[in-house]
Amino acid sequence: MEASRPNVRIEQLQKYYQKNWKNIEKDYFDLLRFQSISSEAEYQPQIRACASWVVHYLEQMGFSVELWESEGHPVIFAAHLKAGHEKPTVLIYNHYDVQPVDPLELWESPPFEPTVKNGNVFARGAQDNKGQLTYVLQAIKALIDEKGELPVNLKLCIEGEEEMGSVSLMKIAKTKQSQLKADHLFIVDLGIPDSKTPAITLGIRGILAMTVEITGSFGDLHSGDHGGVVYNPNRALAEVLGKLHDSQGKVSIPGFYDDVLSLSEEERNEICFDFDEAHYESSFGAKTIGGEKEFSPLESSWIRPTCEINGISGGYAGTGFKTVIPAKAMAKISCRLVPNQDPEKVFVLVEKFFKEHIPTGMQIKIEKHHGGGPATRTTPQSTAVLAVAQAYTEVFNVPCKFIMAGGTISVVTELRKNSGANTVMFGMGLSEDQIHAPNEHFGLERLEKGFLVIARSLELLGAG
Amino acid sequence: MEASRPNVRIEQLQKYYQKNWKNIEKDYFDLLRFQSISSEAEYQPQIRACASWVVHYLEQMGFSVELWESEGHPVIFAAHLKAGHEKPTVLIYNHYDVQPVDPLELWESPPFEPTVKNGNVFARGAQDNKGQLTYVLQAIKALIDEKGELPVNLKLCIEGEEEMGSVSLMKIAKTKQSQLKADHLFIVDLGIPDSKTPAITLGIRGILAMTVEITGSFGDLHSGDHGGVVYNPNRALAEVLGKLHDSQGKVSIPGFYDDVLSLSEEERNEICFDFDEAHYESSFGAKTIGGEKEFSPLESSWIRPTCEINGISGGYAGTGFKTVIPAKAMAKISCRLVPNQDPEKVFVLVEKFFKEHIPTGMQIKIEKHHGGGPATRTTPQSTAVLAVAQAYTEVFNVPCKFIMAGGTISVVTELRKNSGANTVMFGMGLSEDQIHAPNEHFGLERLEKGFLVIARSLELLGAG
Repeated sequence: MEASRPNVRIEQLQKYYQKNWKNIEKDYFDLLRFQSISSEAEYQPQIRACASWVVHYLEQMGFSVELWESEGHPVIFAAHLKAGHEKPTVLIYNHYDVQPVDPLELWESPPFEPTVKNGNVFARGAQDNKGQLTYVLQAIKALIDEKGELPVNLKLCIEGEEEMGSVSLMKIAKTKQSQLKADHLFIVDLGIPDSKTPAITLGIRGILAMTVEITGSFGDLHSGDHGGVVYNPNRALAEVLGKLHDSQGKVSIPGFYDDVLSLSEEERNEICFDFDEAHYESSFGAKTIGGEKEFSPLESSWIRPTCEINGISGGYAGTGFKTVIPAKAMAKISCRLVPNQDPEKVFVLVEKFFKEHIPTGMQIKIEKHHGGGPATRTTPQSTAVLAVAQAYTEVFNVPCKFIMAGGTISVVTELRKNSGANTVMFGMGLSEDQIHAPNEHFGLERLEKGFLVIARSLELLGAG
Repeated sequence: MEASRPNVRIEQLQKYYQKNWKNIEKDYFDLLRFQSISSEAEYQPQIRACASWVVHYLEQMGFSVELWESEGHPVIFAAHLKAGHEKPTVLIYNHYDVQPVDPLELWESPPFEPTVKNGNVFARGAQDNKGQLTYVLQAIKALIDEKGELPVNLKLCIEGEEEMGSVSLMKIAKTKQSQLKADHLFIVDLGIPDSKTPAITLGIRGILAMTVEITGSFGDLHSGDHGGVVYNPNRALAEVLGKLHDSQGKVSIPGFYDDVLSLSEEERNEICFDFDEAHYESSFGAKTIGGEKEFSPLESSWIRPTCEINGISGGYAGTGFKTVIPAKAMAKISCRLVPNQDPEKVFVLVEKFFKEHIPTGMQIKIEKHHGGGPATRTTPQSTAVLAVAQAYTEVFNVPCKFIMAGGTISVVTELRKNSGANTVMFGMGLSEDQIHAPNEHFGLERLEKGFLVIARSLELLGAG
């Protein structure tokens, strides 16, 4: 492909975007206003309303749309298959649900009232994933508006439970293989290293999430009478959690690293491990001292498994003081997993470790949460990856890099298996976007670039 | 004193109690209905109403009453000094405030609606300390009703902040030495080993309470992107808390035991260390495995200092799961102290230990809470102790034992110093009373026995 043609095409698409900006903004903001928090039951009506809005939007573009129902929130499946048999089929994955908004008092503007400040849109879901869904929808709309047709056969899978582990879609996907069938699978829920550098994500980590509860007595006890007599569950918990890592930052659970598959030299050379330590520290106010000492921060985040304590609770933690020895203490723990680690097998190791490190006479209960899954890696040589990389390069005017991500999209493995497609994982997120946190935001410049990348990727795949 | 006279007297007092039982019960229940929770600002009016009720009650008995005001809740000081100069002056300490009632859902009857079940009164404060205050008031009332006078000069100090560290009284006591001046000081906020065994408490532990907060980043972080990169504050906290005790159950903080004064052989022989392990385990559902291995459960509770983790909190601990690395993690810690340990000095040791065990690059803040204080011990040979022991023996018909307690009444040291009195610490509590917990209760049989013990103790002291 010569350099001039795509640049002209990018300019045409930019013109469309600018001309239609008011409508795009309106649609984006309408979508953001739905309080589609999937993990909290009271938002059920808002989840439904949000799904209806997306369904209606797709139907107006000429998609045939289905709602796949399970126990939880519906999966939106839409198809636009008019490009003809000789054209490839692309399946695009997004989600319309969002994370809870607590702590609300830390938001500088209301989480469900999109607010623009310095070129950024602030709202829950502004990036994750309604912003990314918006540029996907707008790119498709632009292609249809301009030419009355799409360059490929297109399927969309937009779920409502990503933020709670994709429980429904994980089940449903197995039963919908013929509908999910595609040549290329776009997972549009990822990011780029910085706003000037395009990148495709070749690997994401898996996850195993657990709740551990230690019980020491029938009820809470007074720490005057019982202090020094009973074994405080907070102490038992701290002692076992304090043993999870050794002095080199490695997870101490026996067997934890047994199945870890290292990157080959060839794979390693494809990946850009560039990392701006000073920028990271000033962005997050945190030193990069949490990983295994023999690995760099990005190696620790991308190619090494972890065991993190996501929550601890036991006894009185309010204002003032209460001299209590709690009956129970609790921790939420998650392991991020790398290729070849089996979540079920790791769970057994973790459970064994905890049970072995609790004082005799105390009770311990470990429960595995739904929605975990293994790690995913993709090859940088697939047609899908090459097309998206080309689109990125055209839009950013610099070569597209290959990176990895430390996070997890559990459903990727299921979608990949049941669609039979080559997967490409990408997106326009930045680590500074505060997703899952107060003041989540997304840059308007990146919204436009995402639009251009999707439109160009589909065109490039359609052109063969 | 021969055996027959006191028994006759006990019978007379019992007759009075039974005859007046309906009024006693009404007064007790009226007092329990006040929601006099001292630590929560919204209960301020109830605290005041409760204080007014007590003031009125004492005035009706002929006491002259003052409210000692400070920033917090008023101290009730009442005096009845008509016994004459040749009679001793007794100062009795109680408190009218109570602990919060959370978690409310675990109460089997409303905490401020006294409910009688199997001879026990269930309510917040039923024992601690409104039950004990009730039998003190009723014993005084009985003596006045019967004889129109009291056998001793009597002063009452009834505070409203015991459950929040006696902050006001600790300050005020220094300025009220002439009013507090007494020969004997009764601290009526303690207990007996079981319902058949009378006992006086010769020692209570001191306390030092602290909040530790560890900060790792500006805000909460996603554990996918940042897991294995930053040092999770939950992990840093667990690691340092996990090092607080060694494998022998000893507190690992260097210097922690340096100033601990051991019991002499003579002191030890006075104390009853009897302990029913099976009864303890079946009452509380907890093994007695929390102390230093070289000490018995009661030694650990009474004569050894502790370091307990009263609360931990960090990250997400609700239902489901949130893949967060919290910005902060927090623990509430308290040390129970034994004689010769200085709370200020121990705080410096604890602070140093925490600061030394936190990874470089993380922030730590340790704050000391108000209301701590050193341990208290009393001699078993004082006139006050001998009189109360005699009264206990008469009432229970078995010899009175000497015990200790693991808890703390911070204000004892101040009251003792500023009254110049010999102290005797006692009461009718049982460890099963669920004080500070849901379903607090007090036995009606013990209410009557407490009444008898107070009345007889005052008579015995008055008789010289």
